Amino acid sequence: MKCRKCGDTAALELRRHNAAFCSPHFIEFFRKQVREAIRQHRMVTTEEPILVAVSGGKDSLALWDVLIEEGYATAGLYLDLGIFDYSVESRAKCEAFASARGQRLIVERVEEAMGAPIPVVQKVTRRPTCSACGLSKRYLMNRAALAHGYAVVATGHNLDDEAATLFGSVMHWQTDALPRQSPMLPSTHPKLARRVKPLYRLSERETAAYAFLRGIDYIVEECPFARGATSLAHKEVLNRLEEASPGAKHNFLFGFLEKARPAFERAEGVTLVECASCGQVTTGTICAFCKLADHVKRAAPS
Amino acid sequence: MKCRKCGDTAALELRRHNAAFCSPHFIEFFRKQVREAIRQHRMVTTEEPILVAVSGGKDSLALWDVLIEEGYATAGLYLDLGIFDYSVESRAKCEAFASARGQRLIVERVEEAMGAPIPVVQKVTRRPTCSACGLSKRYLMNRAALAHGYAVVATGHNLDDEAATLFGSVMHWQTDALPRQSPMLPSTHPKLARRVKPLYRLSERETAAYAFLRGIDYIVEECPFARGATSLAHKEVLNRLEEASPGAKHNFLFGFLEKARPAFERAEGVTLVECASCGQVTTGTICAFCKLADHVKRAAPS
Repeated sequence: MKCRKCGDTAALELRRHNAAFCSPHFIEFFRKQVREAIRQHRMVTTEEPILVAVSGGKDSLALWDVLIEEGYATAGLYLDLGIFDYSVESRAKCEAFASARGQRLIVERVEEAMGAPIPVVQKVTRRPTCSACGLSKRYLMNRAALAHGYAVVATGHNLDDEAATLFGSVMHWQTDALPRQSPMLPSTHPKLARRVKPLYRLSERETAAYAFLRGIDYIVEECPFARGATSLAHKEVLNRLEEASPGAKHNFLFGFLEKARPAFERAEGVTLVECASCGQVTTGTICAFCKLADHVKRAAPS
Repeated sequence: MKCRKCGDTAALELRRHNAAFCSPHFIEFFRKQVREAIRQHRMVTTEEPILVAVSGGKDSLALWDVLIEEGYATAGLYLDLGIFDYSVESRAKCEAFASARGQRLIVERVEEAMGAPIPVVQKVTRRPTCSACGLSKRYLMNRAALAHGYAVVATGHNLDDEAATLFGSVMHWQTDALPRQSPMLPSTHPKLARRVKPLYRLSERETAAYAFLRGIDYIVEECPFARGATSLAHKEVLNRLEEASPGAKHNFLFGFLEKARPAFERAEGVTLVECASCGQVTTGTICAFCKLADHVKRAAPS
């Protein structure tokens, strides 16, 4: 296999693109995909500082790396979920990454905001762990962006993540979730930061290759609570379809964004108001995070 | 396991309904599902004679059996695809079924209409076999309905078939196919028969059980051209999801019909006209069947 660009021995074959690249040209390809994502969805302007949500995994650290290389002013945001060794190690990876590159890392602890770390939240609520955790992360990301003056939060969601989420929404036809499936969620309220996913054109395998080639030290272990998660089962299904037909994931996600998503956008938008308890945006009176925190407090008094 | 109705030993467990039935009550359940499908989608009136498209397989013969039992005036329509022994045997099953029940069986040969049987069509066209065959069947079904004075054609598509078709359309977001995914396709032209799928609420396993319990002799082999078909790969994926979460297929199909299909219905309907060559309905000048037949004729002159 030869690199499509220079004819050298290829380091990576990308079947869905019917292409192969040597290491330097793969990195070039990777950055170009990020630039294309940013350009096409007008994710950020070149002057805008970006808050990059980092978990210590390959995707978010690869994202942070690209954004720094592309010349954006960034800071990292690490959300400490309090998940035993997993959180200790993943925080250490983020701190090492930030200090090696002279970048600021903001750390927020779920325990401080919620009254308990995720393993306790998991025990006292009936919600699936990933659901309560996802809710907490979205809440804290937005809160940190507002507190530190960032208009945009970038997350490391890749093509596989996005396709798996879409697959889950489609299997149940969650018509409220479908219009929110997008690489760019604009701010619809002064207290809501824009959320962008600049890696949505790149597969998990590609972000892993990029992180490896760039010498990024990331946490390899999955979150211990992710085992058996539906999203992983859906990724498996999609991997099998991709194996049989390269490009299947891409076509599924991009076809949705181009052809189907518009059909699900509601004529009347959702009206956001400020939570009566914390002041962050919500569609009700009390936001879901405050409700969950209240539930945790009552169930597990400290 | 006990029958939900009478407490006798159950013959069949239906996990997605969280129910089990003895043989007589399963048959009752099965017929009720067919009645409910017909009622909900206004598929046929009790006075309307129905042309039942039969392949000799479990689904279509089970359907014919139920419709006879429910008191409808029916005739069977067997389309002879000319697929070697498979067609000879499946035709014999249909003839035996019809004569045992004193019903009329209309037989149409693809070879006569197309100029060649399906195996030849497969060789001379680049279309996937199932695609050319499906096109031919839909064409001949409609032509036979018109010729013999039937306003409605019923096919044996079950829940698994419908979910697999939907899955395929969704993986590629075929926005022209999505609005046509329905248990009832109304007539939108005087020369277009209504098409209905009264088994769409029942799984493949359930139609097999019904056929077995009713002593229906059907052809067990799959069509030899179906091997490796994408629809089978999609059925496998759906079976795995169903296994992990009973009701997954049902929720996927029914959720689509209830919540998503309306979003894909085009404001302006498609205008049907008569094919300049054969007079059947088409959206263009020459219908797809005539084009295919012409292609076959030119490629394989007899």
